[in-house]
Amino acid sequence: MTKIRATNITWHEGHVTREEREALLKQKGVTVWFTGLSACGKSTFAFTLEHVLVQRGHLAYCLDGDNIRHGLNKNLGFSAEDRDENIRRIGEVAKLFADTGVIAMTSFISPYRKDRDRARNLHKEAGLPFVEIFVDTPIEVCEERDPKGLYKKARAGELKQFTGVDDPYEAPLKPELVLDASKLSPQEGSIKVLEYLETNGLLPTLGD
Amino acid sequence: MTKIRATNITWHEGHVTREEREALLKQKGVTVWFTGLSACGKSTFAFTLEHVLVQRGHLAYCLDGDNIRHGLNKNLGFSAEDRDENIRRIGEVAKLFADTGVIAMTSFISPYRKDRDRARNLHKEAGLPFVEIFVDTPIEVCEERDPKGLYKKARAGELKQFTGVDDPYEAPLKPELVLDASKLSPQEGSIKVLEYLETNGLLPTLGD
Repeated sequence: MTKIRATNITWHEGHVTREEREALLKQKGVTVWFTGLSACGKSTFAFTLEHVLVQRGHLAYCLDGDNIRHGLNKNLGFSAEDRDENIRRIGEVAKLFADTGVIAMTSFISPYRKDRDRARNLHKEAGLPFVEIFVDTPIEVCEERDPKGLYKKARAGELKQFTGVDDPYEAPLKPELVLDASKLSPQEGSIKVLEYLETNGLLPTLGD
Repeated sequence: MTKIRATNITWHEGHVTREEREALLKQKGVTVWFTGLSACGKSTFAFTLEHVLVQRGHLAYCLDGDNIRHGLNKNLGFSAEDRDENIRRIGEVAKLFADTGVIAMTSFISPYRKDRDRARNLHKEAGLPFVEIFVDTPIEVCEERDPKGLYKKARAGELKQFTGVDDPYEAPLKPELVLDASKLSPQEGSIKVLEYLETNGLLPTLGD
């Protein structure tokens, strides 16, 4: 280590640690994984939470269909193998974000328990917190909303292997949190997540 | 938009913009793409730069073999198709990081021009800056270093399609910066990158 110039830089060639980045950001890296049926309200909760976090000065980023399916995972279809790979990659990328110190949020149906558990284990092995949020909105409500008309198509047989219609949704057995969009507004849901993160030492409480 | 509680939170359900995250971080998202032969010094430059940036209060993260090959890209081998997919995914992930406002650095041989250009175009389409750094250390020097004994194996024919030995390295035609590790120390190289970023408005100058 040598010091050069007037900037008092100390030179290192090794990796910056996660702790150094977390100190810089004044927050902890964590993945908040939203799972639930199509149109259950995952993304609305996630984006509302993202706004609150950024307003509070925290760096949060949401991985969702828009920025993943059309980018990193655009070479994946909907076969069983591709669905598996879709969620695997999302878990790996969320882990990289959490390792950076970011509050990474993922908003995907992620219907299979084994896929979500794999993402959880990846984080566990890296010493990174993983918060699974089951958005448990009744299917009748999701189907009533159906903003993209997907349930309609699935019921008509035009869309195959649609989660909740002809493909199973395996509910989390021990999610960190359960939210129901038919009972909670986006704001109320976000507050529940904030409270969970604060209570579990994953987010400084306001005033800290 | 309604305001609730004493925290003066304004509620939104839409996406947080890149500009909002950049304002929070007081920096611009950018991808700094290091390319060059095996053992040319890419990672040393990248990690030295990462340290300087974090010391200066900037959030930077380095994607490299350690966190990509063993994670996101662990299901890829070394066939032409897999190499292509390796670099494609790295470009997509770097773009997500830059979109978050992070200074994303990538440190991979990335020998083919078309692969690097695809990553550049991805960023261009998203309005994100992309800085390609050609680490142009003479192959004799790289081969002399050979910390993992890879050149030796390649020369002995034990390793096939090794860049610079029996697979081509396509040098960048218009890299933003060229560094030669046989002439520049890691510190000197990092300063050159910092100066490039500052001069091009991608990093606030010290004192700003």
